Amino acid sequence: MSEQKISEIGEFGLIEYLTKNIKIKNKSTVFGVGDDAAVLENNDSKILITTDILTEGIHFDLTYTPLKHLGYKAVVANLSDIYAMNGTPEQITVSVAMSGKFTLDAINELYSGIYLACDKYGVDVIGGDTSSSITGLTISITAIGKANPEDIVYRKGAKINDLICVSGDLGAAFLGLQVLEREKKVFEVNPNSQPNLDQHSYIIERQLKPEARKDIIDIFKDKNIKPTSMIDISDGLSSELIHICNNSNVGCTIYEEKIPTDHTANVAGLELNISPVTSALNGGEDYELLFTMPLAEYERLKDINEIAIIGHITDKSQGKNLVLRTEKVVELTAQGWGNDNVE
Amino acid sequence: MSEQKISEIGEFGLIEYLTKNIKIKNKSTVFGVGDDAAVLENNDSKILITTDILTEGIHFDLTYTPLKHLGYKAVVANLSDIYAMNGTPEQITVSVAMSGKFTLDAINELYSGIYLACDKYGVDVIGGDTSSSITGLTISITAIGKANPEDIVYRKGAKINDLICVSGDLGAAFLGLQVLEREKKVFEVNPNSQPNLDQHSYIIERQLKPEARKDIIDIFKDKNIKPTSMIDISDGLSSELIHICNNSNVGCTIYEEKIPTDHTANVAGLELNISPVTSALNGGEDYELLFTMPLAEYERLKDINEIAIIGHITDKSQGKNLVLRTEKVVELTAQGWGNDNVE
Repeated sequence: MSEQKISEIGEFGLIEYLTKNIKIKNKSTVFGVGDDAAVLENNDSKILITTDILTEGIHFDLTYTPLKHLGYKAVVANLSDIYAMNGTPEQITVSVAMSGKFTLDAINELYSGIYLACDKYGVDVIGGDTSSSITGLTISITAIGKANPEDIVYRKGAKINDLICVSGDLGAAFLGLQVLEREKKVFEVNPNSQPNLDQHSYIIERQLKPEARKDIIDIFKDKNIKPTSMIDISDGLSSELIHICNNSNVGCTIYEEKIPTDHTANVAGLELNISPVTSALNGGEDYELLFTMPLAEYERLKDINEIAIIGHITDKSQGKNLVLRTEKVVELTAQGWGNDNVE
Repeated sequence: MSEQKISEIGEFGLIEYLTKNIKIKNKSTVFGVGDDAAVLENNDSKILITTDILTEGIHFDLTYTPLKHLGYKAVVANLSDIYAMNGTPEQITVSVAMSGKFTLDAINELYSGIYLACDKYGVDVIGGDTSSSITGLTISITAIGKANPEDIVYRKGAKINDLICVSGDLGAAFLGLQVLEREKKVFEVNPNSQPNLDQHSYIIERQLKPEARKDIIDIFKDKNIKPTSMIDISDGLSSELIHICNNSNVGCTIYEEKIPTDHTANVAGLELNISPVTSALNGGEDYELLFTMPLAEYERLKDINEIAIIGHITDKSQGKNLVLRTEKVVELTAQGWGNDNVE
């Protein structure tokens, strides 16, 4: 730990500093950090690759995002994509570009979050790159996972009459972000204000330190069930369900009353004047899993606490519909709140 | 082609626009762009992974770097790392963060260079991410390659008495950068100046549109020879040779007069008052291969036009030495010019 500037130790010193405690966890990791490329090995299974880029001011605001949480979340967002293929993440590469304002302590915080997530999910850091930037912080992570060929679940497999399911609860991450943005504005006006965020701790944690649903993938394995299609919810339920429908060439009907939201998110929604369901549909960053299951699996699914059945797949000609609590039917649209959009 | 702003087509529109012409080239690419993760397959061979992040103002200056060249170079830099393991690159992921100043035409130029490099080297684009940024352009590429387990060449295998070899010529990319920087300054003083860069076309191309040495890897295969250690020269010969020595726990002696430089680089060096050998040692971005070979391979190597033997590996106790043309012996140090360093 040090207040030393990055410039004082140089790139090679920084890489050595950031990677010296890495211990390899996976047999498929033949050679990790320390050469031109990492070496992986794999037999009888397929390899999954996904990548994300996060930029300061667009994906995160360092005024209220602890760097350790940011590192953790950057990893989780990528692992979530591997789980969404019904696979197991095993390796990541981490590239970071940062301006001169960051101290070694700050970078250490960021990487401690990265390594914490890797430890929790059993993933190896096998390479990466560090660079300076003119302004701000950019993090680019690539995750590599494996899956048995017969286990992989794509977005394209949803069939008419399939059940539409989601894990956990939705909308909390977006509401957490709104609380943080509100407190930032309060702080800008009155730097002596002491926010009391206790009643919002769940939704703030959902925003700052989300988890990937490895447990759901484990349930599928334990119960020997396989979704027909799956995607993780990073951009909001509407947008993700539209992806599944478009890729599978089907329609859907979901029910507002079935969309799972947390009690504290509902309370925050009232306070912020944002409907928790709207937040679930358009907010994103929940990293829950959205998947479809054959109707025949209903009996086995209905008692799993962490899974909610929110509707069913229809013929494409019936469109993509949301049935409101009032029984009014509206078309699903991919609005998003632009957090991850190019704009 | 369009002057349309990125914001007008949205992220999904942009992804569709950027990926619609991708054709899969490799059998190992089971599923590319269009799901949470790409799917690769691999039997009997090992997988290589490498990644780089490039940021505007640090790695490139858009006042004299055409975006198409930038995209090409960003890919080549990563493929070079796979070749430096004696492997074959087969896939890349591409993540780009860009500020609102970029038009769709500009992004199209960038990706046309990315796809051109992929076509030339037979590589598939299998995924990526696009994002906005507050300022500037950041490109993060991950390359995935394969190699037979027995073919992989690490940095750590150099043995005492091995020959130290380099491909092509060194130092030109750095001298090309100096010419471009000089012309930029002239242009800033007099925007009507018309630079005549014809005599510097080789060194400028080395800077703006480098190639990775696939042909050298092919020669190794054809002749059934395998280096004992290898690295690509992205940071300058000194720095890379020190990596090989440190990883292999050996010393080295190289000879100034043996370091290959191009004639036009020598001319530019005189004009710019920079020794071409100093540029070769510390300049970087040549993307040539530095490797060691058993002494017994001398007869087979000496007649290969594209390979120069510049010295030999010694016992670690003898240090890392450069014998100057004056026969004076100096210690090799990793200076670099900081182009890729965190500073």
